[in-house]
Amino acid sequence: MIPRYSPKEFVELWSEKSRYTTWLEVELAACEAMEAAGLVPSGTARSIRQKQIVLDPKRIEEIEATTRHDVIAFLTHVEELAGEPARWLHRGMTSSDVLDTSLALLLVRAADSLLGRTDRLIAALAGRAREHARTPMIGRSHGIHAEPTTFGVALAGHLAEVKRGRTRLVRAREEVAVGKIAGAVGTYAHLSPEIEEQALSALGLRAETVSTQVVARDHHAAFFNAMALLASAIERLATNVRHWQRTEVGEAEERFAKGQKGSSAMPHKRNPVLSENLCGLSRIVRAAVVPALENVALWHERDISHSSVERMIAPDATTTLAFMLERAAGLVEGLVVYPARLQQNLDQTGELFFSEAVMLALVHKGLPRQRAYEMVQRSAMRAFQGEGAFRGFLKEDGEISALLQPSEIDECFDLEHALRYATKLVERAINS
Amino acid sequence: MIPRYSPKEFVELWSEKSRYTTWLEVELAACEAMEAAGLVPSGTARSIRQKQIVLDPKRIEEIEATTRHDVIAFLTHVEELAGEPARWLHRGMTSSDVLDTSLALLLVRAADSLLGRTDRLIAALAGRAREHARTPMIGRSHGIHAEPTTFGVALAGHLAEVKRGRTRLVRAREEVAVGKIAGAVGTYAHLSPEIEEQALSALGLRAETVSTQVVARDHHAAFFNAMALLASAIERLATNVRHWQRTEVGEAEERFAKGQKGSSAMPHKRNPVLSENLCGLSRIVRAAVVPALENVALWHERDISHSSVERMIAPDATTTLAFMLERAAGLVEGLVVYPARLQQNLDQTGELFFSEAVMLALVHKGLPRQRAYEMVQRSAMRAFQGEGAFRGFLKEDGEISALLQPSEIDECFDLEHALRYATKLVERAINS
Amino acid sequence: MIPRYSPKEFVELWSEKSRYTTWLEVELAACEAMEAAGLVPSGTARSIRQKQIVLDPKRIEEIEATTRHDVIAFLTHVEELAGEPARWLHRGMTSSDVLDTSLALLLVRAADSLLGRTDRLIAALAGRAREHARTPMIGRSHGIHAEPTTFGVALAGHLAEVKRGRTRLVRAREEVAVGKIAGAVGTYAHLSPEIEEQALSALGLRAETVSTQVVARDHHAAFFNAMALLASAIERLATNVRHWQRTEVGEAEERFAKGQKGSSAMPHKRNPVLSENLCGLSRIVRAAVVPALENVALWHERDISHSSVERMIAPDATTTLAFMLERAAGLVEGLVVYPARLQQNLDQTGELFFSEAVMLALVHKGLPRQRAYEMVQRSAMRAFQGEGAFRGFLKEDGEISALLQPSEIDECFDLEHALRYATKLVERAINS
Amino acid sequence: MIPRYSPKEFVELWSEKSRYTTWLEVELAACEAMEAAGLVPSGTARSIRQKQIVLDPKRIEEIEATTRHDVIAFLTHVEELAGEPARWLHRGMTSSDVLDTSLALLLVRAADSLLGRTDRLIAALAGRAREHARTPMIGRSHGIHAEPTTFGVALAGHLAEVKRGRTRLVRAREEVAVGKIAGAVGTYAHLSPEIEEQALSALGLRAETVSTQVVARDHHAAFFNAMALLASAIERLATNVRHWQRTEVGEAEERFAKGQKGSSAMPHKRNPVLSENLCGLSRIVRAAVVPALENVALWHERDISHSSVERMIAPDATTTLAFMLERAAGLVEGLVVYPARLQQNLDQTGELFFSEAVMLALVHKGLPRQRAYEMVQRSAMRAFQGEGAFRGFLKEDGEISALLQPSEIDECFDLEHALRYATKLVERAINS
Repeated sequence: MIPRYSPKEFVELWSEKSRYTTWLEVELAACEAMEAAGLVPSGTARSIRQKQIVLDPKRIEEIEATTRHDVIAFLTHVEELAGEPARWLHRGMTSSDVLDTSLALLLVRAADSLLGRTDRLIAALAGRAREHARTPMIGRSHGIHAEPTTFGVALAGHLAEVKRGRTRLVRAREEVAVGKIAGAVGTYAHLSPEIEEQALSALGLRAETVSTQVVARDHHAAFFNAMALLASAIERLATNVRHWQRTEVGEAEERFAKGQKGSSAMPHKRNPVLSENLCGLSRIVRAAVVPALENVALWHERDISHSSVERMIAPDATTTLAFMLERAAGLVEGLVVYPARLQQNLDQTGELFFSEAVMLALVHKGLPRQRAYEMVQRSAMRAFQGEGAFRGFLKEDGEISALLQPSEIDECFDLEHALRYATKLVERAINS
Repeated sequence: MIPRYSPKEFVELWSEKSRYTTWLEVELAACEAMEAAGLVPSGTARSIRQKQIVLDPKRIEEIEATTRHDVIAFLTHVEELAGEPARWLHRGMTSSDVLDTSLALLLVRAADSLLGRTDRLIAALAGRAREHARTPMIGRSHGIHAEPTTFGVALAGHLAEVKRGRTRLVRAREEVAVGKIAGAVGTYAHLSPEIEEQALSALGLRAETVSTQVVARDHHAAFFNAMALLASAIERLATNVRHWQRTEVGEAEERFAKGQKGSSAMPHKRNPVLSENLCGLSRIVRAAVVPALENVALWHERDISHSSVERMIAPDATTTLAFMLERAAGLVEGLVVYPARLQQNLDQTGELFFSEAVMLALVHKGLPRQRAYEMVQRSAMRAFQGEGAFRGFLKEDGEISALLQPSEIDECFDLEHALRYATKLVERAINS
Repeated sequence: MIPRYSPKEFVELWSEKSRYTTWLEVELAACEAMEAAGLVPSGTARSIRQKQIVLDPKRIEEIEATTRHDVIAFLTHVEELAGEPARWLHRGMTSSDVLDTSLALLLVRAADSLLGRTDRLIAALAGRAREHARTPMIGRSHGIHAEPTTFGVALAGHLAEVKRGRTRLVRAREEVAVGKIAGAVGTYAHLSPEIEEQALSALGLRAETVSTQVVARDHHAAFFNAMALLASAIERLATNVRHWQRTEVGEAEERFAKGQKGSSAMPHKRNPVLSENLCGLSRIVRAAVVPALENVALWHERDISHSSVERMIAPDATTTLAFMLERAAGLVEGLVVYPARLQQNLDQTGELFFSEAVMLALVHKGLPRQRAYEMVQRSAMRAFQGEGAFRGFLKEDGEISALLQPSEIDECFDLEHALRYATKLVERAINS
Repeated sequence: MIPRYSPKEFVELWSEKSRYTTWLEVELAACEAMEAAGLVPSGTARSIRQKQIVLDPKRIEEIEATTRHDVIAFLTHVEELAGEPARWLHRGMTSSDVLDTSLALLLVRAADSLLGRTDRLIAALAGRAREHARTPMIGRSHGIHAEPTTFGVALAGHLAEVKRGRTRLVRAREEVAVGKIAGAVGTYAHLSPEIEEQALSALGLRAETVSTQVVARDHHAAFFNAMALLASAIERLATNVRHWQRTEVGEAEERFAKGQKGSSAMPHKRNPVLSENLCGLSRIVRAAVVPALENVALWHERDISHSSVERMIAPDATTTLAFMLERAAGLVEGLVVYPARLQQNLDQTGELFFSEAVMLALVHKGLPRQRAYEMVQRSAMRAFQGEGAFRGFLKEDGEISALLQPSEIDECFDLEHALRYATKLVERAINS
């Protein structure tokens, strides 16, 4: 998390203050469940809540300097502020009951915010895809002109992928919405499944099926995986913007703000820096996946090696992805599209992309595919080498004209026909 | 894929022969859909099927040496074998229509086989978890004795994780069961959504929402992620077996086959080599995740950089995971558990794990948690340093005995009570 | 390792036959050292060598099926073939003495072959860089035209990077040229440092400073790192070829073989498939780095988890990199460069890239940088928006013409001057 | 970078203040070189230096909010503070001349500090290795008792690995000590190689052989690789401490501070949390390797995707490694070793580890290795199954006693002999 790439909401979510406040939420929910079970005097949690204590992270840190144990320091501080009733908190619990349940709450909140931002990106992509559903563009494969498509269809492809990413994030949110109030090795030695169930459902969480000292880390790894997939979807989009904005392509570009400078040396440059930035940040979100997977194989009923990793990758990956989603949404919303340039590039290949239509027409006349391919390639290669117009060469070709009338050749050169499903594809993505 | 770690079924699945056979399946399904649409003479596919041609990978390779294009080489070979009707195959399609749809079929088949193997592992874990639901074991955290649990509960934790892994794999199978028959840039220029729909549903697949030349690679990346999570679940299990089998722990060990030799130098050694092997193989499956994610951001309507990656990681990761599942199932089925040693280790900590129960009893008598903690620690540390019995020290402690009767102290030392939820936890995992 | 991407030399290097032959080499070198130390009857190794036995991998596998221990199976087979003297082999050694020393030999041989292939790539880059040292090309940053450079300078940048990669590989070869003949836990219990020293130096290796049962795995991880860096250098080169070959850029392209087909649908397409393939394969070599690093932290004096990983990544990464180097060399050798198109693209930005020279001239006249920047941007933006010629606007600008004579403006527009160091840069790379 | 794991020195090194100060260093060094070349009025840099300006990161940020370009904002701010002479700064340079040269300076400083910390770890390992050079310990492989070694030899193995890591870091420091003052695309359009050479050598750096707009990213990737290797070395050490500290092993443990609490529930627990933490942090440093490698393949003469990645991984990885080195050194310095427990564990295997010595003695009597192996295993297995003493069984064995006298058997059971090279190994590591 560095300020440059950290939305304020996430800075606060992952602050020490937020962390400790969430711990207190968990302790109080557990306390209420224990009150119901008769393990703790009734009204304990309420009396603590009524004190509306404000936790002081600095003070907790101070205590931790001696105890070297963060949860004990936290509890000591709560007792300082809330007095006697606080002694009932944490009864029969282990630190990880608090920490893991709290982490689940924070990740669920992060997920909810990420989903909101994803919705903005989805709306932007849907809007622009519809806007350009019928704007012709040369489709490329391998960076080489292939057959026509539309700018809207390209955006629709990204839209469908981001939506799949959203679906995975919703599932991952469910996967990670799992806490535990089950004691030192998950056996409820001084607790019960009923207490856990009540406490967690008050917090909007489910109980881990079988916990050890901690919730199993596959839940979290799945969450990081889902984030990396969404980041990769943004990377693909950003990569395409970078291609579209290249000087030689020039089909679309990032909105350039007033006063913005492209280069300290070249005043006229407009660089796709937002998109390049998104590609870089995607590497950061992706880099959290392997450590998250390495965190899974804890020793026995747990070791704490996962903890330092999560202290870093949980804020970093969620915050970076939040920033990416916001930036990507703005990028799409502001993307300047140049239909004239799109048309100009489309024209550059001189209708060669209709070669397949011609080949299919020949096959329909009974030619083996291989023969048809070679006959069409003859004219295509001449046109490709700049000797003249593809359509003209076809009509002049003795073998071809023996099979196809000029009008039949002309029918193969129909852009409208080639793009007849563009709108359908855009709508399909929007409704997916 | 190296023979040592490759189940025969997967060697065949990923063979050249299987690859080309699947291509033909796809071409024929597409052909039938085109027949229905009137684009291809009715009966074409049937007449090819009736020839029951046997593809020769060597011959295709030979043709490819000239064309440098595998699908064209394949089609040429099919025409050699099936004659004239084969010229209708691949009409209006692009190579990737065949390749990606075929890859989806192969991955779906791999997934089905992986799911079957996962079921065997699940059954093994469930059986052994029930068998040892009530076998006491010291629960550990940080490698240090914590509180009692049971061997069955430990296995139940693994069971629940493997089941979650299975659920993810089922979803990933759905995610990857996506093909396309949509032409060079996904616009159905010479095809139609209806043809695609018919062809794919005949193959048990769905259509990509918006394809480019290819199916988007996030589908595949999600599949590799799911495999890595399952591999990590096995790694955690194998890591625990390695700990259990350590000379100093000795609580369980891998079945040692007759004639097997542990070491070329030390005849008596029984090493947990299967488990260590599983930990290593998990790194291999995990290593496929990042390249699969890097494959997502293809340029424009596609580049082919993903292809070489998938040629390697798709067989490698699926095959390795298949091997791991098989080996892990065998490992669990054959795991030799030593209840006497489990008990002996449990006894080693001299009942110190009941310290929390004593602390809670003191808190119930009205002591602040912190005071109670310190009072109990006094006796605990003496016992820990080998000066004598924990329970005795507690009873001798003036401050403690002022609050707790000897019988009340004894009540805290109840293993049955500590393990009262063990069976419930095992059943919870089995029913999860 | 899949046949498609596996040079024959590497298929043989990593074959079972080669593996066992190397084991025998190690055993015999160790035997000779033990003869010198008087631990084994003099002449033992020579008498085995004279038998010129041919190992049968199938037979070893057969024996291993019972013993489940590969080195014991190998030794049994050697005794079958070489008779009584073979019983002296492996005296006081542990399996890993053979396996790790043998792995070092194989990796050193792989490294030597990789270095040879790197030399071919270096020669190709040097030759083409010199050829095009003075071929002007628009330099780009962010995909946007920046200032002129030459095609040769671009190749020289790749050349310098590949040379750095070579230097790292030479060092990594040294790092991995480390064996051990030190017994079960590295203490020379039945051996001596002198025996180890003699045996290893006969094999061209050094002794591990302090071994455990195995050579420490940081040696190997460093080797995989060096390979990944070289693969990344090739990826950068291949990425640039893909950009150069784009339809809209068209500055250079891969040699297109006779008979080669670009697409099953579009006969005219020439796709940069070799370069895209290299980008994909780079992900594969890179993917070996993390498992190799994960292999480092073995438990105690060793666990065998690294072994399965290395069985896969050692052949895969070395073979894939060998293939990449070969393909990259061929790619550079055959690269078709289009100077006319380079010039045409250079002209496209209408001399805007000389804006900095104008700005510097203004600064020299005493203007603050910021003012100069704004004054030049005025004309630059008009030209950029297609309103006319940049140079003309500058001359017409009242503020600028008050400071700079038309001839002074013209002096800023000097391509020769801009490229005056091109040849020097190329030579610098060649001599680096 | 999170406070918990960030040494103050690194927090300052990577602060905005330090960043901008370094930029100014670079600009002034370049300015002085340009003065020498007559491009800038003599004395410019000196007059700026004399003003001893104090940069205000907040103000630069403010300006950047408009320009959206950090280096332009920085230069504007410098001009605000230093007035007219500052207009000469950055002449003919591109932003990356400043940024990349500055990054090199920061990484070199980070490297120097890391090397200092590595030296402390090396000294600690050397001291403790010598201290325990002759402290017997059972050597383990696969977690199973193998043959004796010493605690000092184990530490010496870690020492040798950390020293190799240091050597790699020294090299990586050299690799990354590379800047550029070469203009927008590295052609020295308005500069010269001489100016670059002078400016960089004043800063203690070398010039990139052929730069583009930036220094090639393989330099940096190599640096991250070297850090990951050092982190992995620490992980192996920490993993062993965790094993040694296990309740059942108890051979060594982390120093437990006064007041420190092992667990909120179990007062007596002493968990190896520092070592577990080091294992987790190693995953973080390792996770920087892949993004750093992905940064290499920039497009053309550069894209800026690497920048956001480096803004995060450069501070994170260097800072985390600095923290790890410090913590690891403290861990080793304070490690509490329990020789009595080491001896007790050594005795646990009942001399079985001498089995190889017996086997070798039988081979010397002329037995085939395989026969000898089986004969010894007979007694070993009985002893292993707890039926009695290994040495006794050997002496009672008819076949063995026919070949070996009781005294000859006794000679095989010599711990001194087994450990005769321990001191030599320790010294070898210290002198490596």
